[in-house]
Amino acid sequence: MSRVYNFSAGPSMLPESVLKRAADEMLDYHGCGQSVMEMSHRSKIYGSIIEAAEADLRQIMGIPDNYKVLFLQGGASSQFAMVPLNLMNGSGKADYVITGQWAKKAFAEGSRYGEAKAVASSADKTFSYIPKLDPSTFTKDADYFHICMNNTIYGTKFHQLPETGDVPLVADFSSCILSEPVDVSKFGVIYAGAQKNCGPAGLTIVIIREDLIGKARDITPTMFNYQTHADNGSMFNTPPCYAIYIFGLVLQWIKDEIGGLDAMKARNEAKAAVLYDFLDNSKLFRGTVVKEDRSLMNAPFVTGDADMDAKFVKAAEAAGFVNLKGHRSVGGMRASIYNAMPMEGVEKLVAFMKDFEANA
Amino acid sequence: MSRVYNFSAGPSMLPESVLKRAADEMLDYHGCGQSVMEMSHRSKIYGSIIEAAEADLRQIMGIPDNYKVLFLQGGASSQFAMVPLNLMNGSGKADYVITGQWAKKAFAEGSRYGEAKAVASSADKTFSYIPKLDPSTFTKDADYFHICMNNTIYGTKFHQLPETGDVPLVADFSSCILSEPVDVSKFGVIYAGAQKNCGPAGLTIVIIREDLIGKARDITPTMFNYQTHADNGSMFNTPPCYAIYIFGLVLQWIKDEIGGLDAMKARNEAKAAVLYDFLDNSKLFRGTVVKEDRSLMNAPFVTGDADMDAKFVKAAEAAGFVNLKGHRSVGGMRASIYNAMPMEGVEKLVAFMKDFEANA
Ligand SMILES: Cc1ncc(COP(=O)(O)O)c(C=O)c1O
Ligand SMILES: Cc1ncc(COP(=O)(O)O)c(C=O)c1O
Ligand SMILES: [Mg+2]
Ligand SMILES: [Mg+2]
Ligand SMILES: [Mg+2]
Ligand SMILES: [Mg+2]
Repeated sequence: MSRVYNFSAGPSMLPESVLKRAADEMLDYHGCGQSVMEMSHRSKIYGSIIEAAEADLRQIMGIPDNYKVLFLQGGASSQFAMVPLNLMNGSGKADYVITGQWAKKAFAEGSRYGEAKAVASSADKTFSYIPKLDPSTFTKDADYFHICMNNTIYGTKFHQLPETGDVPLVADFSSCILSEPVDVSKFGVIYAGAQKNCGPAGLTIVIIREDLIGKARDITPTMFNYQTHADNGSMFNTPPCYAIYIFGLVLQWIKDEIGGLDAMKARNEAKAAVLYDFLDNSKLFRGTVVKEDRSLMNAPFVTGDADMDAKFVKAAEAAGFVNLKGHRSVGGMRASIYNAMPMEGVEKLVAFMKDFEANA
Repeated sequence: MSRVYNFSAGPSMLPESVLKRAADEMLDYHGCGQSVMEMSHRSKIYGSIIEAAEADLRQIMGIPDNYKVLFLQGGASSQFAMVPLNLMNGSGKADYVITGQWAKKAFAEGSRYGEAKAVASSADKTFSYIPKLDPSTFTKDADYFHICMNNTIYGTKFHQLPETGDVPLVADFSSCILSEPVDVSKFGVIYAGAQKNCGPAGLTIVIIREDLIGKARDITPTMFNYQTHADNGSMFNTPPCYAIYIFGLVLQWIKDEIGGLDAMKARNEAKAAVLYDFLDNSKLFRGTVVKEDRSLMNAPFVTGDADMDAKFVKAAEAAGFVNLKGHRSVGGMRASIYNAMPMEGVEKLVAFMKDFEANA
């Protein structure tokens, strides 16, 4: 078997040790004679899996006690509606910063349920930067303020949080959750699909301050009400059991093999530095994002020549570096180097790019 | 490793050959160097997995061309809201038959969005039968008529469909999908969580007649609109990729190892007969459902003595027959004998029950 280096933006690489353990335990989890896929979600043994996952997430991220952790389905895309349905319950207003496709989709869905305002946008330069924010333009009585923390498609990241005062900050962490330490207390809601940094598709993690729960609009489907899941330990109905199990294994890997989020951050910064340093010095390739807003997770780059880009993507794939094609809305290349991508993968990619450049 | 016989009502047993293949392919699917969990859902290779799953489901169930197949998240519980949000768009009325907890929950959610009417109920006898239906009591201009095809908790099944005329019949197939042939053309919508008969939790299958798509209420979250998923081949956002892959393996097992739904039905009838025959002849145990409405999938039974029930469940578990405890709302025992339960499992359970009875 030869594993490839997978630079997919999501779903994406998982730690090999996690996959090996999942394979080993597939027919018999810890001697219980069942696969995790076959377990009643109300069994004691499954209870120990979901409880450990929540406890580990709380410990690793330092989640304060006044926050609930919810394991949901429906992807981050469902959160685009759950956020307004649950939170737009005061003034009916909310602010959004438009930093890419996902931020735009969140804003569009919010606009269907209330007065959503785009307080800033970087659409003018293909979302290649994070707009400077002027708090005097923020809606004072907004029910929340929404950002997309890391913009998967364009490769930008909020390195500084907006000053929203008492207005709860809601953030889409889909492509950066668990990549570095974060002060959860600065947020009202953090949500993320698991399929980039921490598990398989089909699990959505929501971390929500308790006082924001319980005021959903009347029209909210029961399954879209945060309270439904908060009141039932994410067991109102059958949760995505196997995805939660794999997520739990990833959390154990972060704790035991990586050593927590400080170590994870150092590792991710080192990986990103190798790639960005090369891009900054290359004559053939260049990154598309202004330096100060660069993401640690997604690095888009181009040669400036679409044919050359295509040639590169093809050659890279043949050499075992897969999914380097940029998002269809941008073109060029994008290397997503999430938590599970080892330094070796980035170093080998850069060596390959150097070679390609030398022969171009 | 010693596998147990797992009588869980869901999530539940999967065919051992499916689990073995999943374990084998965990780190490298068909030589591509990636786990299915790691694949971009927009990659060619993943495309082949989801397309094969849909094609196989269409072939096995004989789904007519004017029906869409959707692979969704959120469980059957989300369908309780999606059905009214998408279909209660004419008269705003719908009929429900109340045959158990799930039917009740579906009815409650429907009632939040329109004029839902309970046309019949078997609550008077703890849902131990399917109520006789009188079409003259049906709402003539209802937008749909909802039934729970197989009542997981109480062990009843509709052996005859209600005569709803032009009113689309909507059915929750969570605990009987793929257990026997079904004439899909008799239904407007069939929905099912995968975690009982055909896969892991986290995948919901929806089979919907095309003319019922595209008329969702304004308030419907984009992710709860059938059209969103129908227009995008279930790829509007990241689908539950791994669960769809396992579902696909189960479909291959039905095709190649079982031989299709006629063979599956024969197998399920034979299994159920072994259990029900024993219950009918036992002096200690008895089934709780009237004979003509019995489910092929879920067989609740009691001794009539709660202490004896508890003793039996405990002894059975020690002998490798797990999850036989009845639902918390009913008590007693319940043996769920879904597709993946081999005849051997039922025979051994009955042998164990005979022994237990002899020594009781
Ligand atoms: C930042 C961000 N938000 C939202 C999404 C959509 O997530 P999902 O497919 O889980 O709905 C994605 C990626 O697919 C993303 O990168
Ligand atoms: C008939 C029926 N409908 C609905 C449900 C709820 O499904 P889910 O947990 O997928 O929401 C279940 C079982 O859990 C069921 O048996
Ligand atoms: Mg983006
Ligand atoms: Mg350069
Ligand atoms: Mg029931
Ligand atoms: Mg009897």
